[in-house]
Amino acid sequence: MKEYVDLNTPARILLGPGPSMVDPRVLRAMAHPLLGHLDPQFVALMNEVQDLLRYAFQTENEVTFPVSGTGSASMEATVANLLEPGDSILIGVNGYFGERLCDMASRYGAEVRRLERPWGEVFTVEEVEAALREKPAKVVGLVHAETSTGTLQPMEGMAEVVHNYGGLLLIDCVTSLGGVPVKIDEWGVDIAYSGTQKCMSCPPGLGPLTVGPRARETLHQRKTKVANWYLDLTMVEAYWGDERTYHHTAPISMSFAIREALRIIHEEGLEARFARHQANSALLWEGLEALGLKLIVPAEYRLPSLTTVQAPEGINEADIRQKLLSDYNIEIAGGLGKFKGQAWRIGLMGYSSCRENVALLLAALENLLK
Amino acid sequence: MKEYVDLNTPARILLGPGPSMVDPRVLRAMAHPLLGHLDPQFVALMNEVQDLLRYAFQTENEVTFPVSGTGSASMEATVANLLEPGDSILIGVNGYFGERLCDMASRYGAEVRRLERPWGEVFTVEEVEAALREKPAKVVGLVHAETSTGTLQPMEGMAEVVHNYGGLLLIDCVTSLGGVPVKIDEWGVDIAYSGTQKCMSCPPGLGPLTVGPRARETLHQRKTKVANWYLDLTMVEAYWGDERTYHHTAPISMSFAIREALRIIHEEGLEARFARHQANSALLWEGLEALGLKLIVPAEYRLPSLTTVQAPEGINEADIRQKLLSDYNIEIAGGLGKFKGQAWRIGLMGYSSCRENVALLLAALENLLK
Repeated sequence: MKEYVDLNTPARILLGPGPSMVDPRVLRAMAHPLLGHLDPQFVALMNEVQDLLRYAFQTENEVTFPVSGTGSASMEATVANLLEPGDSILIGVNGYFGERLCDMASRYGAEVRRLERPWGEVFTVEEVEAALREKPAKVVGLVHAETSTGTLQPMEGMAEVVHNYGGLLLIDCVTSLGGVPVKIDEWGVDIAYSGTQKCMSCPPGLGPLTVGPRARETLHQRKTKVANWYLDLTMVEAYWGDERTYHHTAPISMSFAIREALRIIHEEGLEARFARHQANSALLWEGLEALGLKLIVPAEYRLPSLTTVQAPEGINEADIRQKLLSDYNIEIAGGLGKFKGQAWRIGLMGYSSCRENVALLLAALENLLK
Repeated sequence: MKEYVDLNTPARILLGPGPSMVDPRVLRAMAHPLLGHLDPQFVALMNEVQDLLRYAFQTENEVTFPVSGTGSASMEATVANLLEPGDSILIGVNGYFGERLCDMASRYGAEVRRLERPWGEVFTVEEVEAALREKPAKVVGLVHAETSTGTLQPMEGMAEVVHNYGGLLLIDCVTSLGGVPVKIDEWGVDIAYSGTQKCMSCPPGLGPLTVGPRARETLHQRKTKVANWYLDLTMVEAYWGDERTYHHTAPISMSFAIREALRIIHEEGLEARFARHQANSALLWEGLEALGLKLIVPAEYRLPSLTTVQAPEGINEADIRQKLLSDYNIEIAGGLGKFKGQAWRIGLMGYSSCRENVALLLAALENLLK
């Protein structure tokens, strides 16, 4: 019979696009003995998670909670719930995750229109307005932080334009929430989703979601049932609302984890946290350029949580990543989709974003590229 | 500013319908520092999880893995993938989860036929055959262990009948896997799903799934895209298969947890584990009857992992549950759906199934019912 040994894995330094490293406090919280999902003590904890998530999303939205799946599940929840067959959605595609949003929306029978930009670029308000002038859309989807390219989409003025044309603004904050400002209410965003394993530094498995009043009204006015039981927000909302109507069993241990991760964000404070992400990435950028490496995204819309680096000519980029892992226990990632084989993706997210990790990575890269 | 204190919850004795208590070994494994989801060490661990899940499901099915959501997600994955609009499914409804299967299947445009039995009863092979003779169905869905009523559906001969009429047999093993025999290959089951938080004694958050060759062939012959991106098994299968094609970020810590929970099942051995569940429940049944309480399900198809008890006349069943929780730290559950207010549901699942828990619960109930 095969033997299954004790878990015994190396202590990786996670500097890829997620999962990021997790504060030991979060690991300890996750290892807390379980409560039942209807236990009054757990219900109180759910309320705290919601409060703290509102803090992270900078919103007063009542419907703010983690979906019981990874970021991809909260992503799908947005389109599954907002769109009915025949509805239109305009999606900004400038990377892998804009593509994915198109695929998901099409599965719900939506008429998907693509607004395209080369990978590594971002959209202007004027472009979005021009597309809506040509033809309005029920929903406009934009990726705030594109994990495949490392761009930070400016959001100022976007919601105003979308609302002027009668649409709802949906944004992907998977790689921004908790590391880069995400101002749901100030920006006027109608619905946004994220994942836990990036700047929140919580293990993957939950998908934070926030739904504003306009989007909520749209949900309540649906003519058809949501074509997805697990992610049907009208039911999930009742579970997270005052009624606590049983829908599915909440992931208890992951709820302990996200509460602790959010508590750490709250203690550090959003402004200090954003400044830390910015400062460590600035150090990284400076160091990479000093090594003669080229950053793909221009500084003005470069994401402070994830940096894409052009793989240098004449080397096998996968070999370097392999050596970083085997010789230094450091994980970075290769390019995804169009950037495959051509880029490295270096994440400095949450607990992973610290000066010592930057110094170590730069030293290791310097040795390996010599 | 509101203060969020350290996690500080009571040590509950979880004797409801799940989550069950979790072995400290599983909690420790879950608290292990993270690996990246594409790390070769994590990929090796995914293979072990699959091997061990095959052991638990008693199957050789290649497509056997945990879906990245709770049991409800793996449940939805079965119907979302097997059914295309207009396909027919015959569902045995004798409790809450048969109902749920009908709701889910209808969302994928299937023609849903209900085969009904009063809550607390099970189906005979003859009944299923008669229904199929009247009109065949592409899929027949049965709940092996009905968590709302405590029935154990006999499976012998079922698949033969379903296959004779050209259908696929789908079963719900949420409350049986790891506590009650689930013989996927011997029974000829085509697709089955479960949850982790019952007899496997792993925290909730993953949905074990196994897909046999006939069901897999059906997936590969679909004419339409699966109307659910997150649960699209053709994509998830590529992620868990040799290609390891990126789909979504696996829940790393929960994967550590399920590996350890499955390793414990493997160490104990299925037969010993089933015998333990049976013996402790037999003690419970004897004790409950000695207290004058009436068990709802007849002994011949009573589930060894979950017992439904008729709430005694003249007492408020919720008060007793409340006192069990506040005075003894014991959680049991009330009835669900049709049994609401009329039943208690007592789970003895996985790590929770031990003699001391039975003795304590019986003593507490005796005191409270005096």
